[in-house]
Amino acid sequence: MKMTADEASNLSPSDLRQAMRKGQWRQSTVGLARGHVQANLAVLPSDLAFDFLLFCQRNPKPCPIIEVTDPGDPIVKQVAAADLRSDLPRYRIYRDGELVQEPFDAADHWREDLVAFLLGCSLTFEEALYSAGVPLRHWESGRSLPMYRTSIACEPAGKFRGNMAVSMRPVPGSLVARAVLVASRFPLAHGAPVHVGDPATIGIEDLDEVYAGEPPSMQEGDIPVFTACGVTPQLIAGNAAPPLMITHYPEHMLVCDIRSDNLDFL
Amino acid sequence: MKMTADEASNLSPSDLRQAMRKGQWRQSTVGLARGHVQANLAVLPSDLAFDFLLFCQRNPKPCPIIEVTDPGDPIVKQVAAADLRSDLPRYRIYRDGELVQEPFDAADHWREDLVAFLLGCSLTFEEALYSAGVPLRHWESGRSLPMYRTSIACEPAGKFRGNMAVSMRPVPGSLVARAVLVASRFPLAHGAPVHVGDPATIGIEDLDEVYAGEPPSMQEGDIPVFTACGVTPQLIAGNAAPPLMITHYPEHMLVCDIRSDNLDFL
Repeated sequence: MKMTADEASNLSPSDLRQAMRKGQWRQSTVGLARGHVQANLAVLPSDLAFDFLLFCQRNPKPCPIIEVTDPGDPIVKQVAAADLRSDLPRYRIYRDGELVQEPFDAADHWREDLVAFLLGCSLTFEEALYSAGVPLRHWESGRSLPMYRTSIACEPAGKFRGNMAVSMRPVPGSLVARAVLVASRFPLAHGAPVHVGDPATIGIEDLDEVYAGEPPSMQEGDIPVFTACGVTPQLIAGNAAPPLMITHYPEHMLVCDIRSDNLDFL
Repeated sequence: MKMTADEASNLSPSDLRQAMRKGQWRQSTVGLARGHVQANLAVLPSDLAFDFLLFCQRNPKPCPIIEVTDPGDPIVKQVAAADLRSDLPRYRIYRDGELVQEPFDAADHWREDLVAFLLGCSLTFEEALYSAGVPLRHWESGRSLPMYRTSIACEPAGKFRGNMAVSMRPVPGSLVARAVLVASRFPLAHGAPVHVGDPATIGIEDLDEVYAGEPPSMQEGDIPVFTACGVTPQLIAGNAAPPLMITHYPEHMLVCDIRSDNLDFL
Protein backbone atom coordinates (compact mmCIF):
# COMPACT_ATOMS: atom_id res chain seq x y z
CA MET A 1 0.00 0.00 0.00
CA LYS A 2 1.46 3.33 -1.05
CA MET A 3 2.02 6.11 1.42
CA THR A 4 1.08 9.78 1.04
CA ALA A 5 3.69 12.54 1.25
CA ASP A 6 2.08 13.70 4.49
CA GLU A 7 2.42 10.24 6.00
CA ALA A 8 6.03 9.97 4.83
CA SER A 9 6.93 13.35 6.28
CA ASN A 10 6.12 12.15 9.79
CA LEU A 11 8.27 9.02 9.72
CA SER A 12 11.60 8.48 11.43
CA PRO A 13 14.57 7.59 9.20
CA SER A 14 14.32 3.88 10.04
CA ASP A 15 10.55 3.78 9.43
CA LEU A 16 11.07 5.60 6.14
CA ARG A 17 13.70 3.06 5.06
CA GLN A 18 11.31 0.25 5.98
CA ALA A 19 8.60 1.85 3.83
CA MET A 20 11.09 2.07 0.95
CA ARG A 21 12.12 -1.56 1.42
CA LYS A 22 8.46 -2.61 1.22
CA GLY A 23 7.83 -0.46 -1.87
CA GLN A 24 5.49 1.86 0.01
CA TRP A 25 7.59 4.95 -0.72
CA ARG A 26 9.31 5.29 -4.10
CA GLN A 27 9.41 9.07 -4.34
CA SER A 28 11.92 11.85 -3.66
CA THR A 29 13.34 12.27 -0.15
CA VAL A 30 13.31 16.10 -0.30
CA GLY A 31 11.88 17.44 2.94
CA LEU A 32 11.66 14.02 4.60
CA ALA A 33 13.27 13.10 7.93
CA ARG A 34 14.13 16.76 8.43
CA GLY A 35 17.28 17.43 10.41
CA HIS A 36 18.77 14.06 9.45
CA VAL A 37 21.62 13.25 7.10
CA GLN A 38 20.78 12.16 3.57
CA ALA A 39 23.38 10.45 1.38
CA ASN A 40 24.23 9.92 -2.27
CA LEU A 41 25.14 6.39 -3.33
CA ALA A 42 27.80 5.18 -5.77
CA VAL A 43 28.60 1.46 -5.94
CA LEU A 44 31.50 0.11 -7.99
CA PRO A 45 33.46 -3.11 -8.50
CA SER A 46 36.39 -3.36 -6.08
CA ASP A 47 39.04 -3.15 -8.81
CA LEU A 48 37.90 0.44 -9.45
CA ALA A 49 37.47 1.29 -5.77
CA PHE A 50 40.90 2.87 -5.20
CA ASP A 51 40.61 5.17 -8.20
CA PHE A 52 37.10 6.22 -7.20
CA LEU A 53 38.06 6.77 -3.57
CA LEU A 54 40.99 8.87 -4.81
CA PHE A 55 38.61 10.81 -7.08
CA CYS A 56 36.42 11.57 -4.07
CA GLN A 57 39.42 12.55 -1.95
CA ARG A 58 40.55 14.95 -4.68
CA ASN A 59 37.05 16.38 -5.17
CA PRO A 60 35.67 16.77 -1.65
CA LYS A 61 33.12 19.45 -2.63
CA PRO A 62 31.03 17.22 -4.97
CA CYS A 63 32.09 13.91 -3.38
CA PRO A 64 32.44 14.23 0.42
CA ILE A 65 32.75 10.69 1.74
CA ILE A 66 30.72 9.78 4.78
CA GLU A 67 31.06 5.98 4.72
CA VAL A 68 32.58 3.25 2.55
CA THR A 69 31.51 -0.37 2.92
CA ASP A 70 33.86 -3.34 2.90
CA PRO A 71 33.94 -5.16 -0.48
CA GLY A 72 30.83 -7.30 -0.93
CA ASP A 73 29.04 -5.94 2.12
CA PRO A 74 25.79 -4.09 1.30
CA ILE A 75 25.16 -3.18 4.94
CA VAL A 76 25.81 0.37 6.19
CA LYS A 77 27.13 0.46 9.73
CA GLN A 78 28.06 3.93 10.84
CA VAL A 79 25.50 6.43 9.59
CA ALA A 80 22.45 4.15 9.37
CA ALA A 81 21.41 0.55 9.99
CA ALA A 82 20.56 0.06 6.33
CA ASP A 83 20.73 -2.49 3.53
CA LEU A 84 21.90 -0.65 0.43
CA ARG A 85 20.23 -3.18 -1.90
CA SER A 86 16.73 -2.20 -0.83
CA ASP A 87 16.62 0.79 1.51
CA LEU A 88 16.68 3.64 -1.01
CA PRO A 89 13.46 4.60 -2.81
CA ARG A 90 14.92 4.25 -6.30
CA TYR A 91 18.19 3.37 -8.05
CA ARG A 92 20.04 3.83 -11.31
CA ILE A 93 22.01 1.03 -12.93
CA TYR A 94 24.87 1.92 -15.28
CA ARG A 95 26.62 -0.69 -17.45
CA ASP A 96 29.79 0.37 -19.28
CA GLY A 97 28.86 3.95 -18.46
CA GLU A 98 25.36 3.74 -19.97
CA LEU A 99 22.25 4.22 -17.86
CA VAL A 100 20.33 0.98 -18.47
CA GLN A 101 17.71 0.74 -15.72
CA GLU A 102 16.04 2.73 -12.92
CA PRO A 103 14.70 0.05 -10.55
CA PHE A 104 13.16 0.43 -7.10
CA ASP A 105 15.36 -2.33 -5.69
CA ALA A 106 19.00 -3.13 -6.46
CA ALA A 107 19.27 -6.66 -5.05
CA ASP A 108 19.29 -8.31 -8.49
CA HIS A 109 22.37 -6.30 -9.46
CA TRP A 110 24.44 -6.75 -6.32
CA ARG A 111 27.71 -8.70 -6.58
CA GLU A 112 30.28 -10.01 -4.14
CA ASP A 113 32.98 -7.61 -5.37
CA LEU A 114 31.04 -4.36 -4.99
CA VAL A 115 32.16 -1.48 -2.77
CA ALA A 116 29.57 1.14 -1.80
CA PHE A 117 30.43 4.79 -1.30
CA LEU A 118 28.06 7.06 0.60
CA LEU A 119 28.57 10.71 -0.21
CA GLY A 120 27.11 13.64 1.69
CA CYS A 121 24.08 15.41 0.22
CA SER A 122 22.96 19.02 0.55
CA LEU A 123 19.44 17.92 1.56
CA THR A 124 21.20 17.32 4.90
CA PHE A 125 21.37 21.05 5.67
CA GLU A 126 18.02 22.23 4.29
CA GLU A 127 16.41 22.07 7.73
CA ALA A 128 19.28 24.23 9.07
CA LEU A 129 18.79 26.77 6.24
CA TYR A 130 15.06 26.85 6.92
CA SER A 131 15.58 27.24 10.69
CA ALA A 132 17.96 30.11 10.00
CA GLY A 133 15.25 31.92 8.01
CA VAL A 134 16.54 31.16 4.52
CA PRO A 135 13.49 30.37 2.34
CA LEU A 136 13.60 27.12 0.36
CA ARG A 137 11.81 27.87 -2.91
CA HIS A 138 11.48 24.22 -3.91
CA TRP A 139 9.80 23.44 -0.58
CA GLU A 140 7.42 26.38 -1.05
CA SER A 141 6.52 25.36 -4.61
CA GLY A 142 6.41 21.63 -3.91
CA ARG A 143 8.95 21.00 -6.64
CA SER A 144 12.14 19.04 -6.56
CA LEU A 145 15.57 20.65 -6.46
CA PRO A 146 17.10 21.61 -9.85
CA MET A 147 20.43 19.99 -10.70
CA TYR A 148 22.78 20.95 -13.53
CA ARG A 149 25.91 19.90 -15.38
CA THR A 150 28.61 22.60 -15.12
CA SER A 151 31.83 23.47 -16.92
CA ILE A 152 33.79 23.12 -13.64
CA ALA A 153 36.35 20.36 -14.21
CA CYS A 154 36.91 17.85 -11.41
CA GLU A 155 40.43 16.77 -10.50
CA PRO A 156 40.86 13.41 -12.28
CA ALA A 157 41.91 10.12 -10.65
CA GLY A 158 42.58 7.07 -12.81
CA LYS A 159 39.71 6.67 -15.27
CA PHE A 160 37.44 8.99 -13.31
CA ARG A 161 37.30 12.45 -14.85
CA GLY A 162 34.66 14.94 -15.88
CA ASN A 163 32.74 18.00 -14.79
CA MET A 164 31.01 18.78 -11.55
CA ALA A 165 27.24 18.64 -11.06
CA VAL A 166 25.56 21.27 -8.90
CA SER A 167 22.20 21.79 -7.27
CA MET A 168 20.75 25.30 -7.15
CA ARG A 169 18.70 27.14 -4.55
CA PRO A 170 17.40 30.66 -5.21
CA VAL A 171 18.21 32.87 -2.19
CA PRO A 172 17.16 36.49 -1.56
CA GLY A 173 20.24 38.72 -1.90
CA SER A 174 20.06 39.83 1.71
CA LEU A 175 20.26 36.20 2.87
CA VAL A 176 23.04 34.90 0.62
CA ALA A 177 25.70 35.48 3.28
CA ARG A 178 23.57 33.66 5.84
CA ALA A 179 23.04 30.74 3.45
CA VAL A 180 26.83 30.51 2.91
CA LEU A 181 27.53 30.54 6.65
CA VAL A 182 24.91 27.92 7.48
CA ALA A 183 26.01 25.57 4.67
CA SER A 184 29.68 25.98 5.64
CA ARG A 185 28.89 24.24 8.94
CA PHE A 186 28.26 21.04 6.95
CA PRO A 187 31.41 20.34 4.90
CA LEU A 188 30.54 16.64 4.64
CA ALA A 189 27.24 17.64 3.00
CA HIS A 190 29.00 19.71 0.25
CA GLY A 191 29.40 22.70 2.58
CA ALA A 192 29.58 26.28 1.30
CA PRO A 193 28.41 26.97 -2.28
CA VAL A 194 30.82 26.62 -5.22
CA HIS A 195 29.27 29.55 -7.10
CA VAL A 196 26.87 32.43 -6.46
CA GLY A 197 25.24 34.42 -9.26
CA ASP A 198 25.56 34.24 -13.04
CA PRO A 199 24.88 30.65 -14.18
CA ALA A 200 26.70 31.17 -17.50
CA THR A 201 30.03 31.57 -15.70
CA ILE A 202 29.90 27.90 -14.77
CA GLY A 203 28.51 26.75 -18.09
CA ILE A 204 24.77 26.77 -17.35
CA GLU A 205 23.01 28.52 -20.23
CA ASP A 206 19.42 28.16 -19.08
CA LEU A 207 18.24 27.52 -15.53
CA ASP A 208 15.14 25.83 -16.89
CA GLU A 209 17.18 23.11 -18.58
CA VAL A 210 17.92 20.85 -15.66
CA TYR A 211 19.96 17.65 -15.64
CA ALA A 212 17.72 16.29 -12.90
CA GLY A 213 14.99 17.58 -10.61
CA GLU A 214 12.66 20.36 -11.75
CA PRO A 215 13.23 23.94 -12.98
CA PRO A 216 13.53 26.48 -10.16
CA SER A 217 10.86 28.87 -9.02
CA MET A 218 12.83 32.13 -8.65
CA GLN A 219 11.29 35.12 -6.91
CA GLU A 220 12.18 38.76 -7.44
CA GLY A 221 15.50 39.59 -5.79
CA ASP A 222 16.58 35.94 -5.63
CA ILE A 223 20.17 35.12 -6.52
CA PRO A 224 21.03 31.61 -7.76
CA VAL A 225 23.25 29.82 -5.22
CA PHE A 226 25.01 26.71 -6.55
CA THR A 227 26.12 23.85 -4.33
CA ALA A 228 28.33 20.95 -5.46
CA CYS A 229 26.17 17.88 -5.99
CA GLY A 230 26.59 14.17 -5.34
CA VAL A 231 25.17 13.17 -8.73
CA THR A 232 28.65 14.10 -10.05
CA PRO A 233 29.69 10.40 -10.10
CA GLN A 234 26.75 9.72 -12.44
CA LEU A 235 27.97 12.44 -14.83
CA ILE A 236 31.48 11.00 -14.90
CA ALA A 237 30.25 7.40 -15.31
CA GLY A 238 30.07 8.00 -19.05
CA ASN A 239 33.79 8.81 -19.16
CA ALA A 240 35.01 6.10 -16.79
CA ALA A 241 32.60 3.50 -18.24
CA PRO A 242 32.80 1.05 -15.32
CA PRO A 243 31.31 -2.35 -16.23
CA LEU A 244 28.77 -1.86 -13.43
CA MET A 245 27.82 1.15 -11.34
CA ILE A 246 24.81 1.37 -9.05
CA THR A 247 23.71 4.80 -7.82
CA HIS A 248 20.69 6.39 -6.21
CA TYR A 249 18.13 7.98 -8.53
CA PRO A 250 18.61 11.78 -8.18
CA GLU A 251 16.91 13.15 -5.06
CA HIS A 252 15.97 9.61 -3.96
CA MET A 253 18.59 9.39 -1.24
CA LEU A 254 19.63 7.09 1.57
CA VAL A 255 17.98 8.58 4.66
CA CYS A 256 20.39 8.15 7.57
CA ASP A 257 19.87 7.75 11.30
CA ILE A 258 22.37 10.37 12.38
CA ARG A 259 21.34 13.96 12.79
CA SER A 260 22.75 16.58 10.43
CA ASP A 261 24.41 18.47 13.26
CA ASN A 262 26.48 15.40 14.10
CA LEU A 263 27.66 14.62 10.58
CA ASP A 264 30.95 16.43 10.87
CA PHE A 265 31.78 14.83 14.21
CA LEU A 266 31.94 11.38 12.61
CA MET B 1 77.36 22.92 5.17
CA LYS B 2 74.89 22.55 8.02
CA MET B 3 72.46 25.29 8.91
CA THR B 4 71.70 26.64 12.39
CA ALA B 5 68.16 26.60 13.82
CA ASP B 6 68.12 30.40 13.61
CA GLU B 7 68.99 30.30 9.93
CA ALA B 8 66.39 27.62 9.26
CA SER B 9 63.67 29.55 11.07
CA ASN B 10 63.94 32.41 8.58
CA LEU B 11 63.56 30.30 5.45
CA SER B 12 60.50 30.01 3.21
CA PRO B 13 59.01 26.54 2.76
CA SER B 14 60.69 26.07 -0.63
CA ASP B 15 64.09 27.23 0.63
CA LEU B 16 63.74 24.91 3.61
CA ARG B 17 62.97 21.95 1.33
CA GLN B 18 65.99 22.83 -0.78
CA ALA B 19 68.17 22.85 2.36
CA MET B 20 66.76 19.42 3.28
CA ARG B 21 67.41 18.09 -0.23
CA LYS B 22 71.04 19.22 0.04
CA GLY B 23 71.44 17.70 3.50
CA GLN B 24 71.87 21.11 5.15
CA TRP B 25 68.87 20.61 7.46
CA ARG B 26 68.21 17.17 8.93
CA GLN B 27 66.45 18.22 12.13
CA SER B 28 62.88 18.60 13.37
CA THR B 29 60.52 20.98 11.59
CA VAL B 30 58.85 22.18 14.82
CA GLY B 31 58.54 25.96 14.70
CA LEU B 32 59.83 26.25 11.12
CA ALA B 33 57.95 27.96 8.27
CA ARG B 34 55.43 29.23 10.79
CA GLY B 35 51.90 29.66 9.48
CA HIS B 36 52.44 27.04 6.77
CA VAL B 37 51.06 23.55 6.47
CA GLN B 38 53.24 20.63 7.57
CA ALA B 39 52.43 17.08 6.50
CA ASN B 40 52.96 13.50 7.64
CA LEU B 41 54.09 11.01 5.00
CA ALA B 42 53.07 7.39 4.48
CA VAL B 43 54.12 5.62 1.27
CA LEU B 44 52.85 2.14 0.37
CA PRO B 45 52.79 -0.26 -2.59
CA SER B 46 49.75 0.34 -4.80
CA ASP B 47 48.15 -3.02 -4.02
CA LEU B 48 47.66 -1.81 -0.44
CA ALA B 49 46.62 1.70 -1.43
CA PHE B 50 42.86 1.17 -1.37
CA ASP B 51 42.89 -0.40 2.08
CA PHE B 52 45.11 2.37 3.43
CA LEU B 53 43.03 5.13 1.83
CA LEU B 54 39.94 3.50 3.35
CA PHE B 55 41.72 3.35 6.73
CA CYS B 56 42.39 7.09 6.48
CA GLN B 57 38.80 7.82 5.41
CA ARG B 58 37.53 5.86 8.41
CA ASN B 59 39.97 7.52 10.80
CA PRO B 60 40.01 11.18 9.78
CA LYS B 61 41.21 12.42 13.18
CA PRO B 62 44.64 10.69 13.08
CA CYS B 63 44.80 10.40 9.27
CA PRO B 64 43.32 13.48 7.56
CA ILE B 65 44.29 13.22 3.90
CA ILE B 66 45.58 16.33 2.22
CA GLU B 67 47.03 14.84 -0.96
CA VAL B 68 47.57 11.43 -2.57
CA THR B 69 50.04 10.98 -5.43
CA ASP B 70 49.40 8.90 -8.52
CA PRO B 71 51.08 5.45 -8.38
CA GLY B 72 54.82 5.74 -9.05
CA ASP B 73 54.87 9.53 -8.93
CA PRO B 74 57.02 10.95 -6.10
CA ILE B 75 56.12 14.55 -6.95
CA VAL B 76 53.63 16.50 -4.84
CA LYS B 77 51.48 18.85 -6.89
CA GLN B 78 48.80 20.52 -4.84
CA VAL B 79 50.19 21.51 -1.44
CA ALA B 80 53.86 21.93 -2.36
CA ALA B 81 56.20 21.67 -5.34
CA ALA B 82 58.17 18.87 -3.69
CA ASP B 83 59.95 15.62 -4.46
CA LEU B 84 58.99 13.16 -1.73
CA ARG B 85 62.19 11.14 -2.20
CA SER B 86 64.42 13.94 -0.94
CA ASP B 87 62.50 16.93 0.39
CA LEU B 88 61.86 15.80 3.95
CA PRO B 89 64.64 16.11 6.55
CA ARG B 90 64.53 12.46 7.58
CA TYR B 91 62.64 9.24 6.81
CA ARG B 92 61.78 5.88 8.29
CA ILE B 93 61.82 2.68 6.23
CA TYR B 94 59.65 -0.25 7.32
CA ARG B 95 59.96 -3.70 5.75
CA ASP B 96 57.30 -6.30 6.65
CA GLY B 97 56.23 -3.96 9.43
CA GLU B 98 59.70 -3.71 10.99
CA LEU B 99 61.55 -0.41 11.22
CA VAL B 100 64.82 -1.15 9.40
CA GLN B 101 66.38 2.24 8.58
CA GLU B 102 66.11 5.98 9.29
CA PRO B 103 67.81 7.62 6.29
CA PHE B 104 67.99 11.30 5.33
CA ASP B 105 66.97 10.52 1.74
CA ALA B 106 64.49 7.94 0.45
CA ALA B 107 65.45 7.78 -3.24
CA ASP B 108 67.15 4.38 -2.88
CA HIS B 109 63.89 2.87 -1.60
CA TRP B 110 61.47 4.38 -4.12
CA ARG B 111 59.67 2.01 -6.50
CA GLU B 112 57.40 2.42 -9.52
CA ASP B 113 54.37 0.99 -7.69
CA LEU B 114 54.43 3.31 -4.67
CA VAL B 115 51.56 5.62 -3.72
CA ALA B 116 52.31 8.47 -1.31
CA PHE B 117 49.78 9.74 1.20
CA LEU B 118 50.23 13.16 2.80
CA LEU B 119 48.36 13.50 6.05
CA GLY B 120 47.74 16.72 7.94
CA CYS B 121 49.91 17.50 10.98
CA SER B 122 49.12 19.51 14.08
CA LEU B 123 52.32 21.56 13.67
CA THR B 124 50.18 23.30 11.03
CA PHE B 125 48.12 25.14 13.66
CA GLU B 126 50.80 25.92 16.25
CA GLU B 127 51.27 29.44 14.89
CA ALA B 128 47.50 29.97 15.18
CA LEU B 129 47.54 28.73 18.79
CA TYR B 130 50.47 31.01 19.58
CA SER B 131 48.82 34.00 17.89
CA ALA B 132 45.67 33.34 19.90
CA GLY B 133 47.69 33.55 23.14
CA VAL B 134 47.91 29.83 23.89
CA PRO B 135 51.45 29.15 25.18
CA LEU B 136 53.40 26.36 23.48
CA ARG B 137 55.47 24.74 26.22
CA HIS B 138 57.69 22.83 23.78
CA TRP B 139 58.56 26.07 21.96
CA GLU B 140 59.36 27.76 25.30
CA SER B 141 61.55 24.89 26.46
CA GLY B 142 63.16 24.24 23.08
CA ARG B 143 62.06 20.62 23.21
CA SER B 144 60.23 18.57 20.66
CA LEU B 145 56.57 17.65 20.97
CA PRO B 146 55.77 14.50 23.01
CA MET B 147 53.92 11.72 21.16
CA TYR B 148 52.29 8.66 22.70
CA ARG B 149 50.63 5.37 21.86
CA THR B 150 47.06 5.27 23.19
CA SER B 151 44.44 2.62 23.90
CA ILE B 152 42.02 4.32 21.45
CA ALA B 153 41.27 1.75 18.74
CA CYS B 154 41.16 2.95 15.15
CA GLU B 155 38.41 1.74 12.82
CA PRO B 156 40.07 -1.06 10.81
CA ALA B 157 40.23 -1.31 7.00
CA GLY B 158 41.63 -4.45 5.38
CA LYS B 159 44.94 -5.31 7.07
CA PHE B 160 45.26 -1.88 8.64
CA ARG B 161 44.22 -1.91 12.27
CA GLY B 162 45.62 -0.72 15.59
CA ASN B 163 45.56 2.09 18.09
CA MET B 164 45.77 5.83 17.61
CA ALA B 165 48.89 7.88 18.31
CA VAL B 166 48.51 11.32 19.87
CA SER B 167 50.66 14.36 20.45
CA MET B 168 50.26 16.32 23.68
CA ARG B 169 50.42 20.02 24.47
CA PRO B 170 50.10 21.26 28.06
CA VAL B 171 47.58 24.12 28.16
CA PRO B 172 46.63 26.34 31.12
CA GLY B 173 43.11 25.44 32.26
CA SER B 174 41.77 28.89 31.42
CA LEU B 175 42.93 28.51 27.82
CA VAL B 176 41.79 24.94 27.08
CA ALA B 177 38.53 26.14 25.49
CA ARG B 178 40.46 28.57 23.32
CA ALA B 179 42.91 25.85 22.26
CA VAL B 180 39.96 23.61 21.27
CA LEU B 181 38.32 26.38 19.24
CA VAL B 182 41.51 27.36 17.42
CA ALA B 183 42.41 23.74 16.57
CA SER B 184 38.86 23.02 15.40
CA ARG B 185 39.40 25.51 12.56
CA PHE B 186 41.94 23.06 11.10
CA PRO B 187 40.16 19.71 10.65
CA LEU B 188 42.67 18.63 7.99
CA ALA B 189 45.45 19.12 10.55
CA HIS B 190 43.78 16.76 13.11
CA GLY B 191 41.42 19.52 14.30
CA ALA B 192 40.01 19.60 17.82
CA PRO B 193 41.67 17.42 20.49
CA VAL B 194 40.62 13.79 20.97
CA HIS B 195 41.10 13.95 24.75
CA VAL B 196 41.64 16.53 27.49
CA GLY B 197 42.89 15.65 30.96
CA ASP B 198 43.75 12.32 32.59
CA PRO B 199 46.28 10.47 30.39
CA ALA B 200 45.43 7.09 31.97
CA THR B 201 41.93 7.20 30.46
CA ILE B 202 43.46 6.78 27.01
CA GLY B 203 46.09 4.27 28.09
CA ILE B 204 49.03 6.59 28.80
CA GLU B 205 50.50 5.61 32.16
CA ASP B 206 53.39 8.05 32.32
CA LEU B 207 53.70 11.31 30.35
CA ASP B 208 57.48 11.02 30.52
CA GLU B 209 57.43 7.78 28.54
CA VAL B 210 57.03 9.08 25.03
CA TYR B 211 56.76 7.08 21.81
CA ALA B 212 58.53 9.88 19.96
CA GLY B 213 59.61 13.45 20.66
CA GLU B 214 60.63 14.52 24.15
CA PRO B 215 58.87 14.46 27.56
CA PRO B 216 56.68 17.53 28.16
CA SER B 217 57.51 20.48 30.32
CA MET B 218 54.26 20.99 32.25
CA GLN B 219 53.72 24.14 34.29
CA GLU B 220 51.45 24.55 37.29
CA GLY B 221 47.81 24.69 36.21
CA ASP B 222 48.52 23.09 32.84
CA ILE B 223 46.10 20.43 31.60
CA PRO B 224 47.31 17.83 29.08
CA VAL B 225 45.54 18.30 25.74
CA PHE B 226 45.85 15.35 23.35
CA THR B 227 45.60 15.70 19.58
CA ALA B 228 45.36 12.79 17.14
CA CYS B 229 48.75 12.27 15.47
CA GLY B 230 49.89 11.34 11.99
CA VAL B 231 52.46 8.86 13.24
CA THR B 232 49.48 6.52 13.70
CA PRO B 233 50.30 4.75 10.38
CA GLN B 234 53.75 3.93 11.80
CA LEU B 235 52.13 2.34 14.87
CA ILE B 236 49.86 0.20 12.76
CA ALA B 237 52.63 -0.82 10.33
CA GLY B 238 53.54 -3.61 12.74
CA ASN B 239 50.06 -5.11 12.41
CA ALA B 240 49.59 -4.63 8.67
CA ALA B 241 53.21 -5.63 7.90
CA PRO B 242 53.35 -4.15 4.39
CA PRO B 243 56.40 -5.39 2.46
CA LEU B 244 57.56 -1.77 2.20
CA MET B 245 56.41 1.40 3.90
CA ILE B 246 58.23 4.73 3.80
CA THR B 247 57.27 7.42 6.31
CA HIS B 248 58.65 10.66 7.67
CA TYR B 249 60.74 10.45 10.85
CA PRO B 250 58.52 11.81 13.67
CA GLU B 251 58.46 15.63 13.73
CA HIS B 252 60.56 15.75 10.54
CA MET B 253 57.70 16.72 8.27
CA LEU B 254 57.09 17.79 4.71
CA VAL B 255 56.94 21.58 4.86
CA CYS B 256 54.28 22.73 2.38
CA ASP B 257 53.89 25.92 0.37
CA ILE B 258 50.27 26.56 1.30
CA ARG B 259 49.39 28.60 4.34
CA SER B 260 47.66 26.90 7.25
CA ASP B 261 44.61 29.12 6.95
CA ASN B 262 44.01 27.85 3.42
CA LEU B 263 44.36 24.14 4.20
CA ASP B 264 40.66 23.50 4.61
CA PHE B 265 39.76 25.34 1.42
CA LEU B 266 41.65 22.77 -0.68
